[in-house]
Amino acid sequence: MNGGKHFAKGSQKPELPDDGMLRLYSMRFCPYAHRVHLVLDAKNIPYHTIFINLTDKPEWLTEFSALGKVPALQLTTDEGAPALIESLIIAEYLDEKYPEKPLYPKDPLKKAQDKILIERFGAVVSPMYKVFLSGNEPGTLLEISKGLDIYEQELRSRGTPFFGGDKPGMLDYMIWPWCERSEMLKYLLDDKYKMDEERFAQLLKWKDLMINDAAVKSFYLNGETHAKYMRSRREGHADYDMLVNTSKRQRTC
Amino acid sequence: MNGGKHFAKGSQKPELPDDGMLRLYSMRFCPYAHRVHLVLDAKNIPYHTIFINLTDKPEWLTEFSALGKVPALQLTTDEGAPALIESLIIAEYLDEKYPEKPLYPKDPLKKAQDKILIERFGAVVSPMYKVFLSGNEPGTLLEISKGLDIYEQELRSRGTPFFGGDKPGMLDYMIWPWCERSEMLKYLLDDKYKMDEERFAQLLKWKDLMINDAAVKSFYLNGETHAKYMRSRREGHADYDMLVNTSKRQRTC
Repeated sequence: MNGGKHFAKGSQKPELPDDGMLRLYSMRFCPYAHRVHLVLDAKNIPYHTIFINLTDKPEWLTEFSALGKVPALQLTTDEGAPALIESLIIAEYLDEKYPEKPLYPKDPLKKAQDKILIERFGAVVSPMYKVFLSGNEPGTLLEISKGLDIYEQELRSRGTPFFGGDKPGMLDYMIWPWCERSEMLKYLLDDKYKMDEERFAQLLKWKDLMINDAAVKSFYLNGETHAKYMRSRREGHADYDMLVNTSKRQRTC
Repeated sequence: MNGGKHFAKGSQKPELPDDGMLRLYSMRFCPYAHRVHLVLDAKNIPYHTIFINLTDKPEWLTEFSALGKVPALQLTTDEGAPALIESLIIAEYLDEKYPEKPLYPKDPLKKAQDKILIERFGAVVSPMYKVFLSGNEPGTLLEISKGLDIYEQELRSRGTPFFGGDKPGMLDYMIWPWCERSEMLKYLLDDKYKMDEERFAQLLKWKDLMINDAAVKSFYLNGETHAKYMRSRREGHADYDMLVNTSKRQRTC
């Protein structure tokens, strides 16, 4: 799942087998699409991935995703139904449609509280992306840490290794894409960022456990790779096919 | 439910009876809070309303709503639990917790499609608020109409009076606060806006039916009243207590 060329403007529509499997329109480095990969993988739902070049979108994308957005999930069993969009809506749909290995808590209150924590993670994501895209500005790293305090506190009060209990649940997977990407801070800021080991003791343990989770592993990229992509984006030519090209180069070496 | 003074900075915390009833922190003219009033009223769930002055928030608000936001729903039965925030999260919580008279469709796909339509209503809300707050600019009214086309189309293809079928469902209630407020366009733009009766035939019928729905009625304000509030907000002194003061004045007349 780490490779796959991105379909761009002018490309032929991919011909996929008529096997009734879900089709996920995605972009390899999009954290929102990442969320959906995690849910599908955690629930062992088979699916096809169609990676999309978001700078030069293929003309046929709007047939499946009205707004040309990714992630978009196409349900091939539902003739004529447009693809589902919005990562959280897709995630909750999958959790309801495939009730084995539920990811959201059953209790409506606990579920609502997890959703609020997913929503509030925006307070971490915004300053993090500011640093990713424009470098560090005074106070931005502090803002990230302040945002993370709530999650450290929450893990402590839950007293479980994951937010979902003894295994990752929806909250774990929904915030993971940005936690994985936080590793690129040390590459983009030349080792100037390190999470305080005491202040974030539980979160750091959680991060180690998450990296070893099967669903996380199957789509994982290290900080250096994320940073390489981010640099290409900063320079105005997002290198969507970086992994495909890299593995080709490796093969020819 | 139309009145109620807004608690401001320096005000005493309201003393409410220990009756186990839900407590909704709200603001009389906030469309997001309006959503929660509609769900509570549609499901006949009893609750106390505490109106909040959002310009000068009472110091004690953060005890209940960590981010000082409204709507916030406090569950008095759940000792120590912070209030729930975010209108859509609260709405879904209420629909799950109080399953009688369900508002979301049971089918996960239909539910996801309704959620996408709730999300996409942002394409109507943004230009509408631009007009509310800064007046009309070229293209903004066209943008509203273009956003509404999807909903007209959807009602036509569903072939039912409401998005929810023969009675309003979650999609109906979640977009209603802005549909009710759209009536103020004629006051704010001196009758220069009128919905095209042919283009929006089904939506206009739907609007008439919605106004007669019991839940909608119980929190309804006409366009002139909304416009009066909006003018006060434009002028920099949002008149939260406009309805209380008006009814007092009426009483003394």
